[in-house]
Amino acid sequence: MSEVNVYRDLGRSFSEWFDYVLEVSEVYDYGRYPAKGMGVWLPYGFKIRENALSILRGLLNSTGHEEILLPLLIPENIIKKESEHIRGFEDQVYWVTHGGLEPLDIKLALRPTSETSLTYLESFWIKSYKQLPKKYYQVVSIFRYETKATRAMIRVREVSTFKEAHTVHEDFNDCERQVLEAIDVYSKFFNSLGIPYIISKRPEWDKFAGAIYTIAFDTLLPDGRALQIGTVHNLGQNFTKVFEVRIQKRDGSIDYAWQTSYGISERVLASMFAVHGDRRGLVLPFHIAPIQIVIIPLITAETYDDVLKYSSKVREVLISKGYRVYEDLRDELRPGEKFYYWEFRGVPLRVEVGMKEVEGNYVTVFRRDTLERIKVELKELLNKVEEIGLDYNNTLSSRAWQVFKSKTMRFTDISKAKEFLNNSKGIVELPWCGKHECGLKLLEVLECDALGTPLDSEAKGLSCAVCGANANTFMRLTRKY
Amino acid sequence: MSEVNVYRDLGRSFSEWFDYVLEVSEVYDYGRYPAKGMGVWLPYGFKIRENALSILRGLLNSTGHEEILLPLLIPENIIKKESEHIRGFEDQVYWVTHGGLEPLDIKLALRPTSETSLTYLESFWIKSYKQLPKKYYQVVSIFRYETKATRAMIRVREVSTFKEAHTVHEDFNDCERQVLEAIDVYSKFFNSLGIPYIISKRPEWDKFAGAIYTIAFDTLLPDGRALQIGTVHNLGQNFTKVFEVRIQKRDGSIDYAWQTSYGISERVLASMFAVHGDRRGLVLPFHIAPIQIVIIPLITAETYDDVLKYSSKVREVLISKGYRVYEDLRDELRPGEKFYYWEFRGVPLRVEVGMKEVEGNYVTVFRRDTLERIKVELKELLNKVEEIGLDYNNTLSSRAWQVFKSKTMRFTDISKAKEFLNNSKGIVELPWCGKHECGLKLLEVLECDALGTPLDSEAKGLSCAVCGANANTFMRLTRKY
Repeated sequence: MSEVNVYRDLGRSFSEWFDYVLEVSEVYDYGRYPAKGMGVWLPYGFKIRENALSILRGLLNSTGHEEILLPLLIPENIIKKESEHIRGFEDQVYWVTHGGLEPLDIKLALRPTSETSLTYLESFWIKSYKQLPKKYYQVVSIFRYETKATRAMIRVREVSTFKEAHTVHEDFNDCERQVLEAIDVYSKFFNSLGIPYIISKRPEWDKFAGAIYTIAFDTLLPDGRALQIGTVHNLGQNFTKVFEVRIQKRDGSIDYAWQTSYGISERVLASMFAVHGDRRGLVLPFHIAPIQIVIIPLITAETYDDVLKYSSKVREVLISKGYRVYEDLRDELRPGEKFYYWEFRGVPLRVEVGMKEVEGNYVTVFRRDTLERIKVELKELLNKVEEIGLDYNNTLSSRAWQVFKSKTMRFTDISKAKEFLNNSKGIVELPWCGKHECGLKLLEVLECDALGTPLDSEAKGLSCAVCGANANTFMRLTRKY
Repeated sequence: MSEVNVYRDLGRSFSEWFDYVLEVSEVYDYGRYPAKGMGVWLPYGFKIRENALSILRGLLNSTGHEEILLPLLIPENIIKKESEHIRGFEDQVYWVTHGGLEPLDIKLALRPTSETSLTYLESFWIKSYKQLPKKYYQVVSIFRYETKATRAMIRVREVSTFKEAHTVHEDFNDCERQVLEAIDVYSKFFNSLGIPYIISKRPEWDKFAGAIYTIAFDTLLPDGRALQIGTVHNLGQNFTKVFEVRIQKRDGSIDYAWQTSYGISERVLASMFAVHGDRRGLVLPFHIAPIQIVIIPLITAETYDDVLKYSSKVREVLISKGYRVYEDLRDELRPGEKFYYWEFRGVPLRVEVGMKEVEGNYVTVFRRDTLERIKVELKELLNKVEEIGLDYNNTLSSRAWQVFKSKTMRFTDISKAKEFLNNSKGIVELPWCGKHECGLKLLEVLECDALGTPLDSEAKGLSCAVCGANANTFMRLTRKY
């Protein structure tokens, strides 16, 4: 556990660390934009975002999802058609009311999500079971007028990286299959970034407006608070009935189509920064880092030519295998400043090259994850980098899971659960009979939020922590963002 | 010329053709979205868009441009600061006035372009000549409240594919260098898509509000009307003075920074569809097509096994070289219907495989560009496809340029120029003294718009077509979209 604590040490409170690191590493400029809740993806951050998105796109494309691009603006009459849906966002929609100096005939909403406009279009596009299942997705900005305190990437008014998927099916069973596929895709995506998570079925009172049920992924940030990082909704026929998406079924009958939708935002990137980072700054997964290896020549006036020649040779060797390499030749910084600079930006490997290395025909490799320095023969460099590359993400992932598991506990006793939440934050599970009033009682007593229930519950033989009746599941509780 | 006319034959008016082809080929759904001037990029169109964008990104990245992502919403006080600038868009900005049910304290504009918000940020980011030149770009939606008749991709209210680049420099000379670099990047991009263009310096009265001058690229659509497909602006210090972007210069002095900006939209894609398409539908450049080669097995009950086995082998051969291949095994369509289907979608090559091909160990290759059918030995297939692939884009490009040149004419006499414009539409050039009133007179007499002047004029010895004084340049005139 001590090792875990060392690596989780951010040197300051998480929220201070987060804002400071994003800004100084030039990932995301949040504080300077002159409208609240909106940030700028800077060049370095944009590349990180693209690398992560390309993994997500790969997972979606290989499971038959097709990327599209819908308009941003949704006319009021369309978004209001699903009254249950709009009620969910009523206080949170931005409205465009004027074009130029004139008021518009119909107000236009900035999309909070696209179920309404896409389902409207599907009423034209989809006519027969032969076209199904149909799986669309898009990566766009969505807008929510957050009135709570905003926070970079985590609670913003413009979510500038929102992947929303929308699928259409012949029947309820195929929706169920699709929900599992979505869970699988998201699990693989989070796994690839080394982000630990717990999957819960949200309680009725916290599901997506318009869904039959909502499955959610939550992770824990270093301050022990839970963050929702993905949701999957079985929408049933709720939207297709409103927008009259009728299909011919296999047996010739006509019925409304069935749908699911699922979304992921830049909160995933926020989590990746948060769970792997340390007091030296960012720690990026090896395949996500815009620069995977930085070469720092250690030069004196006498060794200038020899070291640079060797350094350039090292660079060629690494580039030949397609690694993203940067040789830092800046005059104005001393080596120690360069070390600090690139450690802060989360570059996985640093290769130091000085006169000793030239003479010994080796390099000194520094791992950002374990902070180890390793001597590597030049002829072994490519093998060693490949080996470290594979190990690197495992290290990040297993360390993050270790922290996560230490903060996720099952209890039978309410007061012990409360003590844990007060001390460690994190997530607690308590046996629950499933009755609404017992659920609300738990929230009240523990002064917390409900994440929901496990997908497969194993509470046999246990009693509800509130009423003592047979428990048929667990309730997961936390203090959320 | 007859050949040109055959290929330019769209079988109906250009505007009917354009709307019909985009919809039926499932590239872009324009008519169904319930808000005017906004369209949907469908899966097939989205892939075309991505392939084109990846060429553009490659050109920008390799010249030191860095991709970023700025917020969509610009507060009124920021966008109004550049009063000259906002005057240019005053009637065209969409305004967000409400968040939820409450009016906002400050109205927010949907970006019409991002000079104002980015320059505001640059006042924090850029302090010294050492950071320059700085070249940013982003690919985003921009919004203009068009009150004229809208048209898919060409005149829309949400431009859903806008690449805007913004650069910062130490002095005017470096801006001039950057303008040339931008012209070079755009020329290469249009060349890669086989889109012909003419480069003009826009007249004073038609430059971008806030620019010292504007260089524009125009092409001609099949109806002979000119379409602006790219602009490059030398902004001087107009924006940096307003937003106080001060830098330390090489000599230690402090001055306002210098800027350029340049933009390209989905009009480029509209032009690509328009200039290469024919009455059979789309014709896509070989490297842009989402499916480069479609294989159509010609099957009877008796030949089923043999043909499919051979067809599958042909597919393996083509895939081994990385071509994007689709083997059309749909039962419900006859071969002729499949031919029509894929020709309409602009797939460059069709490989037909029937019993004759099986027995002769060859395939029949159909070229969408020239409509030729070619017999190719199976062992020669990869060589032949590579050869055709190289030739294909040249064919498209040279054909499009031939049409373009036939519709771009230089005259000395106004009445002949007018006759040409009336008959062929296109673009005419007339010698011009450079005086404002002579320019306006030309527009009035010819009932047309001005594209501007060539970058290097060669009007020596000629007289202004209006006043007869020495001409120092040519004025280019057209009837614009």
